[in-house]
Amino acid sequence: MKIDGVPYRSIWLDEDGWSVRIIDQTRLPWSLSILRLSSAAEMAEAIRTMRVRGAPLIGAAAAYGLCLALHDDPSTEAMERDAAMLAGTRPTAVNLRWALDRMLTRLRNTRPEHRLAAAYAEAAAIADEDVAQNEAIGRHGVELIRARQKPGRPVNVLTHCNAGWIATVDWGTALAPIYSAHNEGIDVHVWVDETRPRNQGASLTAWELGSHGVAHTVIADNAGGHLMQHGKVDLVIVGTDRVTRGGDVANKIGTYLKALAAHDNAVPFWVALPSTTIDWTITDGIAEIPIEERPATEVTLMTGQTETGAIATIQVTPPGSGAANPAFDVTPARLVTGLITERGRCDASPEGLLKLFPERA
Amino acid sequence: MKIDGVPYRSIWLDEDGWSVRIIDQTRLPWSLSILRLSSAAEMAEAIRTMRVRGAPLIGAAAAYGLCLALHDDPSTEAMERDAAMLAGTRPTAVNLRWALDRMLTRLRNTRPEHRLAAAYAEAAAIADEDVAQNEAIGRHGVELIRARQKPGRPVNVLTHCNAGWIATVDWGTALAPIYSAHNEGIDVHVWVDETRPRNQGASLTAWELGSHGVAHTVIADNAGGHLMQHGKVDLVIVGTDRVTRGGDVANKIGTYLKALAAHDNAVPFWVALPSTTIDWTITDGIAEIPIEERPATEVTLMTGQTETGAIATIQVTPPGSGAANPAFDVTPARLVTGLITERGRCDASPEGLLKLFPERA
Repeated sequence: MKIDGVPYRSIWLDEDGWSVRIIDQTRLPWSLSILRLSSAAEMAEAIRTMRVRGAPLIGAAAAYGLCLALHDDPSTEAMERDAAMLAGTRPTAVNLRWALDRMLTRLRNTRPEHRLAAAYAEAAAIADEDVAQNEAIGRHGVELIRARQKPGRPVNVLTHCNAGWIATVDWGTALAPIYSAHNEGIDVHVWVDETRPRNQGASLTAWELGSHGVAHTVIADNAGGHLMQHGKVDLVIVGTDRVTRGGDVANKIGTYLKALAAHDNAVPFWVALPSTTIDWTITDGIAEIPIEERPATEVTLMTGQTETGAIATIQVTPPGSGAANPAFDVTPARLVTGLITERGRCDASPEGLLKLFPERA
Repeated sequence: MKIDGVPYRSIWLDEDGWSVRIIDQTRLPWSLSILRLSSAAEMAEAIRTMRVRGAPLIGAAAAYGLCLALHDDPSTEAMERDAAMLAGTRPTAVNLRWALDRMLTRLRNTRPEHRLAAAYAEAAAIADEDVAQNEAIGRHGVELIRARQKPGRPVNVLTHCNAGWIATVDWGTALAPIYSAHNEGIDVHVWVDETRPRNQGASLTAWELGSHGVAHTVIADNAGGHLMQHGKVDLVIVGTDRVTRGGDVANKIGTYLKALAAHDNAVPFWVALPSTTIDWTITDGIAEIPIEERPATEVTLMTGQTETGAIATIQVTPPGSGAANPAFDVTPARLVTGLITERGRCDASPEGLLKLFPERA
């Protein structure tokens, strides 16, 4: 998508042909800082500290991280060691492991002297396929927005966290239908959940929607239920970090609360995902998906821009008070209206998923 | 309750016998700043800017505000004018109007030369009755906590916003049962919802629980549903700004989402209130309770303490993004396990309320 009219992807090869460029998302929305990464360790740090984040982008980033590892040392030993290091950066995202497994499957059967070129080709394929997948998600999802149009008012879509183009390589997942609608000229307005504690909605989603020119309003995470009670939300679209074969959805902490409110107010609740996000090995998301507990300081401290333009970090809790920080929650399939994938839409159920992905039966 | 061992109320007469002292709650938890107010206009400013907040304290503050008006000018004209000004400071809180109506009923039948003494006596009665009511709420509510005790682990109570002693004159409403439990020696631990956008949980509830010595952990508002899914919440207790005769509950924005999660996980959801919070004139809370829309800057800006100890305000959204800020939501009675009042507990239903308050039939 565009930043002030200029088309971007969220990860790309540098002009030197081997190092990797990313947008440092921890600096958004205050500055557009582009980093050049030249080692697997730098990529692992970027994933761990969420300079790159969002399940699909993490997959592409890990793939390019393995390219950087091989650029340094094409031996099998180094490749396996750095793949394990990259796999350990974020425990919840299934795309991270999927991308690394795909790379390793390709590279283990390739001689060391041919590995580097094969790795870059495979990473580029992963990135390009992500873009194509997300564009397809946009095509399948925009129909839901189009169907909700009424004369004289925008279609109001609520989203949580950031599942936009900067959470993927391009287009995004939850935001792909919204960008498609906007590009088609549909009057669409987005309620952007702030998404505490890391504020990915207030900082990233608001920034990318604004940069591309899409109408939006930031709200506290607490406000969505009230808006739904009063008919101000036409549909909810969120992304996901992991979907089980039963249709349970792991996503940013707080997604479950929005799904409950949508269900209580008969507002459609859709989840957009590339099929690589589906974990076919598990069924019961609440029992089986491990939830990452992140540092308490993400709750107790907050970063933003002061009046003078400086970036400052403030403490928002009393010095003696601790905090807990589960980063994700699981929305049971019964609360999900349906899934939007690159193959089309389906029910969030074993049957619905198998209808779209019969090869998994 | 106590601040580092010293007993306090949230509002009291100055030593001069006529001006009024309050704790400036906009300065908490960073500093304990005590203000002296000497006019109705100062009190109105303190209510409007939430230096004093919480439905019961707002009632007492408005009553003392009318005392300050009469101290300045005991005429009927001035009294009515300043009562109207005080009534207009916050549109949602029914206690504000209740306290002013009680004062005016007493004072309209009193000659101007006797009004001042009558006003201070009535305001003191309102404050003392609030303390007695809240202590009774604590007595009726502590039974719920006592019943949930299990050996070797604390009773985990989740609360939203601040309905503690500094939201009332003393004890609090939602926190009164918790203080009672703590004072009895029950092992109680409180999950404190941060309560965006004004952070009353992270700043006020965490501060007062810590100051009194009660174990607690701050969480993002998004986290409660996940904690309930995993059995980490034994009960929810919140306060309220207004309860309808049907049992619908208006409270800080986000309360409805916690009630949905409690219902979905069979966690008891209790609402603590003095009966002055009940609005017997309305039944359907969602249709009939006006919801205050507060400034967008409460969402886009956040205030806290920097590493150097300075208080700083930062912007957490991109410059081009607007925000919406509904301050309250309504939880339908069907999601409320019950109400804890100074007379005892009851179902959140017309029948339940009338059983406790038969004079309202």
